[in-house]
Amino acid sequence: MNSFGRLFRISIFGESHGQTVGIIIDGCPAGIEIKPDDFTADIERRKSGAAGTTPRKEEDIPEIISGVFNDKSTGAPITILFRNNNTRSADYDAIRVTPRPGHADFVLHKKFDGFNDYRGGGHSSGRLTLCLVAAGVIAKKVLNGIDINASLIEAGGDTNIDAAIATAVEKQDSIGGIVECSIKGLPVGLGEPFFDSVESAIAHIAFSIPAIKGIEFGSGFAATKMTGSENNDAILDEKGTTKTNHAGGINGGITNGNPLVFRLAVKPASSTPQEQQTYNTQTQKVEAFTVKGRHDLCIALRVPVVAEAAAATALADLYLIHSK
Amino acid sequence: MNSFGRLFRISIFGESHGQTVGIIIDGCPAGIEIKPDDFTADIERRKSGAAGTTPRKEEDIPEIISGVFNDKSTGAPITILFRNNNTRSADYDAIRVTPRPGHADFVLHKKFDGFNDYRGGGHSSGRLTLCLVAAGVIAKKVLNGIDINASLIEAGGDTNIDAAIATAVEKQDSIGGIVECSIKGLPVGLGEPFFDSVESAIAHIAFSIPAIKGIEFGSGFAATKMTGSENNDAILDEKGTTKTNHAGGINGGITNGNPLVFRLAVKPASSTPQEQQTYNTQTQKVEAFTVKGRHDLCIALRVPVVAEAAAATALADLYLIHSK
Amino acid sequence: MNSFGRLFRISIFGESHGQTVGIIIDGCPAGIEIKPDDFTADIERRKSGAAGTTPRKEEDIPEIISGVFNDKSTGAPITILFRNNNTRSADYDAIRVTPRPGHADFVLHKKFDGFNDYRGGGHSSGRLTLCLVAAGVIAKKVLNGIDINASLIEAGGDTNIDAAIATAVEKQDSIGGIVECSIKGLPVGLGEPFFDSVESAIAHIAFSIPAIKGIEFGSGFAATKMTGSENNDAILDEKGTTKTNHAGGINGGITNGNPLVFRLAVKPASSTPQEQQTYNTQTQKVEAFTVKGRHDLCIALRVPVVAEAAAATALADLYLIHSK
Amino acid sequence: MNSFGRLFRISIFGESHGQTVGIIIDGCPAGIEIKPDDFTADIERRKSGAAGTTPRKEEDIPEIISGVFNDKSTGAPITILFRNNNTRSADYDAIRVTPRPGHADFVLHKKFDGFNDYRGGGHSSGRLTLCLVAAGVIAKKVLNGIDINASLIEAGGDTNIDAAIATAVEKQDSIGGIVECSIKGLPVGLGEPFFDSVESAIAHIAFSIPAIKGIEFGSGFAATKMTGSENNDAILDEKGTTKTNHAGGINGGITNGNPLVFRLAVKPASSTPQEQQTYNTQTQKVEAFTVKGRHDLCIALRVPVVAEAAAATALADLYLIHSK
Repeated sequence: MNSFGRLFRISIFGESHGQTVGIIIDGCPAGIEIKPDDFTADIERRKSGAAGTTPRKEEDIPEIISGVFNDKSTGAPITILFRNNNTRSADYDAIRVTPRPGHADFVLHKKFDGFNDYRGGGHSSGRLTLCLVAAGVIAKKVLNGIDINASLIEAGGDTNIDAAIATAVEKQDSIGGIVECSIKGLPVGLGEPFFDSVESAIAHIAFSIPAIKGIEFGSGFAATKMTGSENNDAILDEKGTTKTNHAGGINGGITNGNPLVFRLAVKPASSTPQEQQTYNTQTQKVEAFTVKGRHDLCIALRVPVVAEAAAATALADLYLIHSK
Repeated sequence: MNSFGRLFRISIFGESHGQTVGIIIDGCPAGIEIKPDDFTADIERRKSGAAGTTPRKEEDIPEIISGVFNDKSTGAPITILFRNNNTRSADYDAIRVTPRPGHADFVLHKKFDGFNDYRGGGHSSGRLTLCLVAAGVIAKKVLNGIDINASLIEAGGDTNIDAAIATAVEKQDSIGGIVECSIKGLPVGLGEPFFDSVESAIAHIAFSIPAIKGIEFGSGFAATKMTGSENNDAILDEKGTTKTNHAGGINGGITNGNPLVFRLAVKPASSTPQEQQTYNTQTQKVEAFTVKGRHDLCIALRVPVVAEAAAATALADLYLIHSK
Repeated sequence: MNSFGRLFRISIFGESHGQTVGIIIDGCPAGIEIKPDDFTADIERRKSGAAGTTPRKEEDIPEIISGVFNDKSTGAPITILFRNNNTRSADYDAIRVTPRPGHADFVLHKKFDGFNDYRGGGHSSGRLTLCLVAAGVIAKKVLNGIDINASLIEAGGDTNIDAAIATAVEKQDSIGGIVECSIKGLPVGLGEPFFDSVESAIAHIAFSIPAIKGIEFGSGFAATKMTGSENNDAILDEKGTTKTNHAGGINGGITNGNPLVFRLAVKPASSTPQEQQTYNTQTQKVEAFTVKGRHDLCIALRVPVVAEAAAATALADLYLIHSK
Repeated sequence: MNSFGRLFRISIFGESHGQTVGIIIDGCPAGIEIKPDDFTADIERRKSGAAGTTPRKEEDIPEIISGVFNDKSTGAPITILFRNNNTRSADYDAIRVTPRPGHADFVLHKKFDGFNDYRGGGHSSGRLTLCLVAAGVIAKKVLNGIDINASLIEAGGDTNIDAAIATAVEKQDSIGGIVECSIKGLPVGLGEPFFDSVESAIAHIAFSIPAIKGIEFGSGFAATKMTGSENNDAILDEKGTTKTNHAGGINGGITNGNPLVFRLAVKPASSTPQEQQTYNTQTQKVEAFTVKGRHDLCIALRVPVVAEAAAATALADLYLIHSK
């Protein structure tokens, strides 16, 4: 489904090579200041341009067409459009017969009986994350007073990111990475167990970001190697401040007032310049294959702002539910 | 919220030390054979009894009180109750003033203004996973023909599980572990991007299982250290069979027909026999503290069948949606 | 689906001739006093016993099995069971081949491929409204301070209800009626347009009550015969008090602070003692037919408390959403 | 909330005097032919122009910006925009201090703390029904083979519609009316009790149409004056054909294969040319008042196509759910 959230609800639409991608944000409280400039910083962070990112350039100017009046949210749905200007659809003709390994070409063709817009991944393109970033800007405003910060802490297995990128460019092969996000200033009590734990909500939306294949909270997989007495966080005061933060700010699926910490595993982009093998449905043979289109060698570079946006969106929803 | 799913919808209720826990399964197709004996094997797998599990014993007999007629599902909601017989609530009086580290005592007290049923974790207890197991039994029937298998592949950092348990018993400290689940026989096309990817749906419900702090699909975090040409799975035939399965059976959030594989990080149980520190809200001091109650040294031993149930429940829902 | 509501969510289960009917109320705020006695008055109002109601007698004692601790809601799901003691299932064997006119026998058989529990209407029985009444008791507590009052204002076309019932008993034919519900003390602002107007929410749940075939708010169908200057309610003060209340307390789908007024059309019970005609699927002929089972001549007598419960449930949900 | 539906889901946005109104249709099956021309007939039916309708003219050209590729639905969300060209916002300055009787001015101001876009009713304007009409065009395609037909059967209490309009024009006062909708060709089995009966789903969306104050199915309120033996529809054959159709094609909340029939009560437009009274929040006095803006004397003239669209949207959702 293309909607997420219960009270702070987002719906996205559009295709990589259509005329427009966009988002509706429904349930945003009235009276929040929203100006086009508010989106600039986060949109810039998501843009390509650094070594290791795609040469496709888009202006990515947000066009707010509903829900904002006199620079304030009205309580009605906020709709934001982004035009696609820089599309080269001819690059994608081949994928109808040679589905790209790692991509959704094969499954989308099967799922939608061949009617999907295959150009550039269509609706499943990473371009849609631009809409998430816009939602994140507003979600951060709803979560007034939090401090949220995500960054790429490892790329291609190397904590020296620059070196990792340089190697990827040299080898002309895509690489993955790990993004860590930390959120301070959240109130105690967000999360609606049994099924809508904070981890459930954040993981749900995080796994909608293309290329994410893992998520862990606090010590995560490392906690499996600790004992209970090592992993438990001693409570130090009436606010619930803990001595350590192995829990990543969450107990029983509910925020405990300590920093919420999670990490995302970003796989290497499937569109590597290296030659690969795939099945050609026309010749009915496995064939060598090189992807066309303009792609990122290290998409993980562009993920931190998207991870922030996803987490903020999930948390804004839980915040409104908890404040009821 | 205590419901999960869109067409195959489950709702759970009950508390660890109340009289009953239970589940409603709404949206199960009519005509599926359901007998009390069908639940026995999975319920036994979840039970304690092995070294490293709690001495609390429950009979866990499923009482089907609606939705089944002449041993077949009717299309109406299926309700299953499990009585709690073996409760020792007096063990829990202390936690009102000394919230247990790692547990939800502190956050539940704050979230529900002190009105929560604190005995044994109340509604947030691991006992509720018994209801998930019951849902899983029916979900597996809906997903007719799949082969689902989860097991504990590592405990306390050790792949020799018996040795890990022995050490935990000797040290009298709880340990965590990693559960791996593999599902064969799923059709191509399950998953409803953008937001309801297969990973989103499984992660959402998996993070409702107490003690889960991480999830990864296919190569997961290990994929972040690979290049695209290593991580991509070459497509070999028209069915989409891939040479490798780094993607864990999922592309673009949609099943690709290869085995779906995920792993869960299970933290060590917070209720370790070791002495810990916590804040006493009455004395207003940090104090030494030892948990009472009967607990598991390695709860991860009991997680595999719950992981299967969670995944099957999420997949049954996506299966019904996809088959529309 | 067997759930209703977004924040104040109810799920019902059970069959007329099963062992139990019941309800889960999820999302009820913590700290609300809930005792078994609180349900007595409304349950009594729904009971049969008056002239024109069924001789089937049930004790209808609510068994609260979760979500309440020390007589207060805990924030966890509240589950209430009602045992069925007084079932005479043999009465219903015939309906498998001779579907009763006006009843759901035919459509349920088709929809669920013959697997539905046909006894007494199964899950579609009016007995399920007992669960609604229980939800209503709690919803009224959530809507602290409102004054809600429904009554039967017309039966069989006659505003003298006693005379109408006497005629029905004499003619031995079932009759319908009109139930009017008025709710005072609601705050301004409940209702979430575009799609979740107050009218939408109340109508949605009202049409789940068996036998309801119409609903109108304020002047309703009579407004179609007025002019705008007659039908408009002049606003008299800053609180929004209006001179008339043709709008029934709702403008633009949102409560305006004046009494919310709606009326329900209750059809005559399909189970009339009179001989009817139906198609016998065994003989493949249209045959004369007399219903068995114990039934109400004027079910509308029992609807007012159900109407209150339905409206209160819908409004409690909108109230929690609005208060976010 | 601004979304409706479970599998066939629509979300609307925009304001009467903003630049654009629009709709997302999510969950439409792939492969359905969709061309801009397909919308023309229904959009024309909704347009003003007849005696008794507003002189505001809009071109209402649908701009399909996502979800359609090569004139076929792709399975991704379909987004349709309609530009607002013909706005005269200055007409609406007065309503900030003198809320119009019958309109949502007062409640919207209260609900959204004065931040709502008040011009022309903002997001609550009847202009949004244009989006519903677009959804209806696609819903009718999903419900392949049905015959749906709504018409105005009474205006201002008169079944001679032309005469009624003439009187309204002469008196310069708005009038209401009754719209009847009949749908043939629906399969048996649509509707998901307990809570999502066909009546519940249609009533829910119908009451989101501005000015609707009542709905009845089949004989509706007239059934309250019948006896059971009069109102019951004798079943005549194995397909469930009934001798009469007092039930309006629905038993137990489920379609029975006979024509589905419902009627809507449309109140007279609140914007009558006649002088009215309202409270002026600036002078704090009740004052005489005449509405500005361009309005319909008989909006009911424009409702039939909207009623069809609403019903088709609700039924398309139930159809996809039932076909699972």
